Amino acid sequence: MFELINKVKEINPLVLHYTNEVTINDCANITLALGASPLMSYSDEEVEEIVSVASSVVINIGTMNSSRLDLFVKAGKAANKFNKPVVLDPVGVFATKTRTNFTNKLLNEIKFDVVKGNIAEIKFIGGLDVRGQGVDSFDDGEDISEVVKRVAIKLGCVVVATGKVDFISDGNRVIKIYNGTPKLKSVTGTGCMTGSLIGSYLGAYDSLIKSDEKVSKIEAVAMGVLTMGVSGELSDRNNIAIGSFKEELINNIYEMNSDKLKEYGRVE
Amino acid sequence: MFELINKVKEINPLVLHYTNEVTINDCANITLALGASPLMSYSDEEVEEIVSVASSVVINIGTMNSSRLDLFVKAGKAANKFNKPVVLDPVGVFATKTRTNFTNKLLNEIKFDVVKGNIAEIKFIGGLDVRGQGVDSFDDGEDISEVVKRVAIKLGCVVVATGKVDFISDGNRVIKIYNGTPKLKSVTGTGCMTGSLIGSYLGAYDSLIKSDEKVSKIEAVAMGVLTMGVSGELSDRNNIAIGSFKEELINNIYEMNSDKLKEYGRVE
Amino acid sequence: MFELINKVKEINPLVLHYTNEVTINDCANITLALGASPLMSYSDEEVEEIVSVASSVVINIGTMNSSRLDLFVKAGKAANKFNKPVVLDPVGVFATKTRTNFTNKLLNEIKFDVVKGNIAEIKFIGGLDVRGQGVDSFDDGEDISEVVKRVAIKLGCVVVATGKVDFISDGNRVIKIYNGTPKLKSVTGTGCMTGSLIGSYLGAYDSLIKSDEKVSKIEAVAMGVLTMGVSGELSDRNNIAIGSFKEELINNIYEMNSDKLKEYGRVE
Repeated sequence: MFELINKVKEINPLVLHYTNEVTINDCANITLALGASPLMSYSDEEVEEIVSVASSVVINIGTMNSSRLDLFVKAGKAANKFNKPVVLDPVGVFATKTRTNFTNKLLNEIKFDVVKGNIAEIKFIGGLDVRGQGVDSFDDGEDISEVVKRVAIKLGCVVVATGKVDFISDGNRVIKIYNGTPKLKSVTGTGCMTGSLIGSYLGAYDSLIKSDEKVSKIEAVAMGVLTMGVSGELSDRNNIAIGSFKEELINNIYEMNSDKLKEYGRVE
Repeated sequence: MFELINKVKEINPLVLHYTNEVTINDCANITLALGASPLMSYSDEEVEEIVSVASSVVINIGTMNSSRLDLFVKAGKAANKFNKPVVLDPVGVFATKTRTNFTNKLLNEIKFDVVKGNIAEIKFIGGLDVRGQGVDSFDDGEDISEVVKRVAIKLGCVVVATGKVDFISDGNRVIKIYNGTPKLKSVTGTGCMTGSLIGSYLGAYDSLIKSDEKVSKIEAVAMGVLTMGVSGELSDRNNIAIGSFKEELINNIYEMNSDKLKEYGRVE
Repeated sequence: MFELINKVKEINPLVLHYTNEVTINDCANITLALGASPLMSYSDEEVEEIVSVASSVVINIGTMNSSRLDLFVKAGKAANKFNKPVVLDPVGVFATKTRTNFTNKLLNEIKFDVVKGNIAEIKFIGGLDVRGQGVDSFDDGEDISEVVKRVAIKLGCVVVATGKVDFISDGNRVIKIYNGTPKLKSVTGTGCMTGSLIGSYLGAYDSLIKSDEKVSKIEAVAMGVLTMGVSGELSDRNNIAIGSFKEELINNIYEMNSDKLKEYGRVE
């Protein structure tokens, strides 16, 4: 699966973002750094046209901008209509009822290919009644692998739960990634940027579906998470302070390749 | 008062921002660098819920986004309702009548804990008729300490006037801070970021009110200004160019501690 | 013409931006780095007041934010009313019908001083029927100098077409700039930032019109393009990765001067 990074650089997928104002610049730059092409739009008018030419769509509810909630739903539906892979990052879904309700609406009206959150967000989403499938509850001690798998089955998509260890499941397999550094939490938007990386790999993966290359969708998603984890790890050297760490992170994404992912990746 | 920085890192206050799109990312990152947690929202729907869980609220009128003026008022009122410290940065209040009127509205409808601006903005605000208290005018040669004190009395809150020397007053005491560097003016948003730092310290301070620790509110506010001034000074070494200066500024905020503030702070 | 950079630093023109959320922070910082003053507004209410005090206005359709299209038109009209130089960056004009129609509307209702795009965008605009002047078509092999000249004549303004070589024409002369590096394409917003630099130089130029200094408008525009090209080139040393390249780019803009522009500029 590591060679998929070459495919990103080769086909340069167009990753369309409907995202928040806080991290929108970093999402664009990390997409470019990996070798894909970012596109950001807040236009109601061009949704269908622009989704139809995109390679993948990333929806991130971040600032919950009131004037854009309808746009985000419209964009997700267009992604489904044009059969484009679409990623949801339900930032802070449990923080307010507004976020919970809006996430529920998105999950009910749109068929996502990936839902990505931290483990608390994923557990919370498991507890929502999506498409009338009832509410899951999890024991405190329940193995995260099982949690992520169950939520993936319920949502019918790949689910990513980030944390000290990152878990990715398609309801069948579970991939665990042990890379990363706590410093990633001290830079705003590394979660959003991981969404951009997943969107980039999915855009490249999508172009392979009909070829005979052997990458499964869950692996394409895992590549996004892995690329962030390994790059974060490589950037956290010599007690680096956080301003320089962020610059190094972009540098390491830019210089990432399949050999480094193979060498440093701790994937299970 | 220098130990308040430890409190920020310990209790990790949630600093809710209603701010402009230009510097929103830098405000989030500087809040994280200090050790607090940033939260940015542009949602009308979640105002009350989200304010109720925040440690402090920062309102910055920056781009004067027409679609958000009502939201900013609503957020300020919610801060008052839930008794959360709330900071106003009336960016460019004298630049247009629109900004003047909106700032006046905010000052009339919301009880701020801190109003922060440069000295020209603070003088201008002193000249507004807030809550029917009449219009102050200042002699050209009037001592800035006196100006800031009078505006603080009039507004009934802590007033910060930044400049070559920064003045902070609660209407009673005046604290002067002599740190800083002209380079801070060559990076956009260092004023907004100072607002984020003040919000972070106020969030930590607020949790101390009922304890027996001896930090007063004006000192908590001064800590925000001081942290920016000292970090700016430490970043301005060897004729550094402005792109690197900005990175160093975040680095120095991240590595700031009570010892450095004590050693380098020039506070009067 | 190289001395115009000193004029920017001397008179500190106020460059008012109506731009996208992705690169708005970088546009502000590059304007400051050059020595001008950025101002960003999303306020319908203050358009006329704020345009009237600006030195120049930059309009960039970037994210095509639905809630701001009317504002952008209003800002452009105000620029015309107050006789302020106004720059258009029609980002992705050919990507969707929505962008094409909106750009057409802007070009029909506003008299721009500069239209800046990549060569594909400029060719596409040449194919629009602006102010009933009919549709131009270009042969595939047509010399870019000629294309840019024809579009400049048609639009009655200075036209910039960026690419491996940058072409600038006022319909009369054509200036070619050979500086730059492919790395500029791997950082989001270098095109938008070039718009900010052009706005800065135009703001300074405008103050010279009635003086006897010998800089023509096309040269002022070329200075913006040249400053980006030379700074990009100087930043692309030792196989630098893209995070560090961006920081170096701002550093080099900050340290740019007429001597360096003369020494490194390859202008024809």
